[in-house]
Amino acid sequence: QGVTLGGIADSAIRHVRNEGLGGMSSLVSGSNATSRIVLRGTENLGGDLSAGFHLESGVALDTGASTSSTNFWDRRATLSLASKAWGELRLGRDYVPSYVNWVRFDPFSHVGVAGSNNFVSATPTGPIRSAFGSAPNTTTRTSNSLQWLLPAGWGGLEGGVMAAEDENGTAANGQHQVRGARLGYAAGPGVVSAAVTRTRNDLTTTDRFDDRVVAGLYDFGPVRVSLALRRFDQANATQNNLLVGAWIPVGNGEIKASWVRAKFSGRVGATALEGRRAHQLGLGYVHNLSKRTALYGTLSHIDNRGLAYVVPGGPSGLAAGGSSRGVEMGMRHSF
Amino acid sequence: QGVTLGGIADSAIRHVRNEGLGGMSSLVSGSNATSRIVLRGTENLGGDLSAGFHLESGVALDTGASTSSTNFWDRRATLSLASKAWGELRLGRDYVPSYVNWVRFDPFSHVGVAGSNNFVSATPTGPIRSAFGSAPNTTTRTSNSLQWLLPAGWGGLEGGVMAAEDENGTAANGQHQVRGARLGYAAGPGVVSAAVTRTRNDLTTTDRFDDRVVAGLYDFGPVRVSLALRRFDQANATQNNLLVGAWIPVGNGEIKASWVRAKFSGRVGATALEGRRAHQLGLGYVHNLSKRTALYGTLSHIDNRGLAYVVPGGPSGLAAGGSSRGVEMGMRHSF
Amino acid sequence: QGVTLGGIADSAIRHVRNEGLGGMSSLVSGSNATSRIVLRGTENLGGDLSAGFHLESGVALDTGASTSSTNFWDRRATLSLASKAWGELRLGRDYVPSYVNWVRFDPFSHVGVAGSNNFVSATPTGPIRSAFGSAPNTTTRTSNSLQWLLPAGWGGLEGGVMAAEDENGTAANGQHQVRGARLGYAAGPGVVSAAVTRTRNDLTTTDRFDDRVVAGLYDFGPVRVSLALRRFDQANATQNNLLVGAWIPVGNGEIKASWVRAKFSGRVGATALEGRRAHQLGLGYVHNLSKRTALYGTLSHIDNRGLAYVVPGGPSGLAAGGSSRGVEMGMRHSF
Repeated sequence: QGVTLGGIADSAIRHVRNEGLGGMSSLVSGSNATSRIVLRGTENLGGDLSAGFHLESGVALDTGASTSSTNFWDRRATLSLASKAWGELRLGRDYVPSYVNWVRFDPFSHVGVAGSNNFVSATPTGPIRSAFGSAPNTTTRTSNSLQWLLPAGWGGLEGGVMAAEDENGTAANGQHQVRGARLGYAAGPGVVSAAVTRTRNDLTTTDRFDDRVVAGLYDFGPVRVSLALRRFDQANATQNNLLVGAWIPVGNGEIKASWVRAKFSGRVGATALEGRRAHQLGLGYVHNLSKRTALYGTLSHIDNRGLAYVVPGGPSGLAAGGSSRGVEMGMRHSF
Repeated sequence: QGVTLGGIADSAIRHVRNEGLGGMSSLVSGSNATSRIVLRGTENLGGDLSAGFHLESGVALDTGASTSSTNFWDRRATLSLASKAWGELRLGRDYVPSYVNWVRFDPFSHVGVAGSNNFVSATPTGPIRSAFGSAPNTTTRTSNSLQWLLPAGWGGLEGGVMAAEDENGTAANGQHQVRGARLGYAAGPGVVSAAVTRTRNDLTTTDRFDDRVVAGLYDFGPVRVSLALRRFDQANATQNNLLVGAWIPVGNGEIKASWVRAKFSGRVGATALEGRRAHQLGLGYVHNLSKRTALYGTLSHIDNRGLAYVVPGGPSGLAAGGSSRGVEMGMRHSF
Repeated sequence: QGVTLGGIADSAIRHVRNEGLGGMSSLVSGSNATSRIVLRGTENLGGDLSAGFHLESGVALDTGASTSSTNFWDRRATLSLASKAWGELRLGRDYVPSYVNWVRFDPFSHVGVAGSNNFVSATPTGPIRSAFGSAPNTTTRTSNSLQWLLPAGWGGLEGGVMAAEDENGTAANGQHQVRGARLGYAAGPGVVSAAVTRTRNDLTTTDRFDDRVVAGLYDFGPVRVSLALRRFDQANATQNNLLVGAWIPVGNGEIKASWVRAKFSGRVGATALEGRRAHQLGLGYVHNLSKRTALYGTLSHIDNRGLAYVVPGGPSGLAAGGSSRGVEMGMRHSF
């Protein structure tokens, strides 16, 4: 048959303390890997051609809700025609190139208390908020896209290009014009890559939102380290996110650590952003019970200067310049 | 086990130009066959009895959204008790008889730029709008229905009857009283059939909405042709849709063509509908890459007189009497 | 592979008459067992440990809608780590202990025209309404919970404890602080058990909502009988539900009967609840066509004193003290 059903169930207990506000406990979903169901399949069309589809729906395993209230197959909805020699043509909703190029360098995979996503939000005044209002859609995914992805085995090269039209939609309903590209090179234990995603919508009409990433990774054996820089630009505002990550295999598990710094510059209207910055330290351990199942624990600490970034899941109302701390223990199960 | 999971993934690139308004490009879902997932199963109960269920959910493969924001299993949700001798008793949400009787005669299956569905909408003032406001529900499906379907092999006869109560609902929430029936006769290369669906709801209280179809099809070998007439009546307003279709097998594919004409008459309140008409020409080619996967391309042209029917996916605001053109190229993959 | 897909499709035709208001017919879903799809799986982790997940989504088989408009996997969304010796740790959305302890004693499983759920609603003024407004969430399930369930084979003991934090949510969005426990003892043909679930939310701040159940069951062979008492308390208001149930195997089927009485006492604000009561008589027959498929028919009659409880699916507007009657015939199919 032409369809495989699988997914991930990931649940954790989290406690977050925000400076001056006390703590809050919660059950959360997807702190090691987003809980999801996946329907996918491929068909060999003969020659070196194949057809494939991929539908992926996020699950909030703590409440049973779908992670998107509007798009059930929010994580991915694509149809592909692929050739071993010429690569893959992919249509639909998928990750943007700059996100793909960033997430693999984050030891915490852009999720959980220590995920680098804590610094990619529309909450603070800056380029992301200017471009998207409250929903920073195309910093992760876009709908309505056409992609061409390089085939495997082009001498270590990997990457692709992506384009999506806005279809007369708005930032509010998640429809943007998107242009993006990614190019990486993997050789032995090292990877270097760069990507850019440019978004235009009704909020960026006279201008554009640019999301650029350069990153690298090297596996020394006892430790794998990564370095990544992501820069968001909109009009006169800029946000720079810098990440240093490390993975250390230990017995049946892995220690993970990351340091992420967000730094704002320029201005939005009359508001100068200079001097606004934050950094996050993350430390975690993942213990594999089997190939499919693991227990994990993670610590995170965020320090702000002029900003109010928080570890998600704490009491609301952190004052600018406050700090936030979080801890979580959970289990991830692939099916 | 008692369950089969399958479906269709269909995506295309479309460009539509509307007279005086320019063009618009978009990625679209389901232009050859609606993208969907299907869960179904049957159980042999012994003797000639079987039980079965069918759940079908439409997928907007361009955005990952479910095609209905309110009914996840919008395309079909039924439970059946079937006998080879006595036919099938089917409960739940399903196609109405007049739709079933129409769609098989449309070479473009009521979807895409050239689908006959372009002329079944509540946009123009007429019987459909009078009966349903903006959502012409029971021109395609109804919820809450009870059906009896003829068994196969009654001397070429096919058909069934359907009834649904309004359950004190309204046209706005999609609950209508429905009565329908369909009867067809297939003999060798020819099919003739007729169907009627009558809907009553809070908007048609003193009257009813009638949807009648008579149609036929003949397979000459090198070409299969169809002729179908569908008539919508509500109070003093009438809409007649006439379709002529053709399928021409060529090598590994098929050329498809259709001509559809919509013609309004009567009146709605003080508005006379006489003289309002439109026709659509559709031409397409489907190339099979395998039994499960095909590439396709379709052209469509709509001409209006006193109406503003459009090929879907173009810039909005076409003036009455304007024309609309569309082209799309895509891929359909069954799984 | 690690995943099983299954479920139940259950549809029926129902007619309900309410005193002074006439009757209403409808197609309904889940009158013998709620229509649903289930995704679940377990993985043996070696030793006596296993991991497991369970996702369950309710389906309104009459309309194709998901039974919850906000939480797709509303019926259950859990991740488990289980040991044969030490029991199961379960995280996520699941039944509360008092519900688990009640539903097994109801011959009509808390669904359909004769389900004991007809007397667990927020419609009348009383403890449930005081604690939840219009949505009595934790009388059935809670999100965000942590559970420990006893292993099988602890000398006939069964049960567990449950806790959920409110995560700064409100009764309106379904987030409550929950504490619950259940303990039962099964020996041969008899079962006795008790459970309590305590809920706190923004509507019960100075107080709490308590839901206590004591129940027993005995299988005499030709007839199995149950007796259960459920008591809801909030501030000065109390509701007592008493159930007597019976199951009588006959040939290939089973006769079921239940008598349920709801009795209010205390007061809400200045409103005295004394004397408000209702009872429901239910009688049904289930005929098995196979292990997976059954036909069923059920009768129900509700008598009110000072209340307006109704069999669901009838015309609205029953006056306090009126009576309600319902009948339904349907089919249940497991897949």
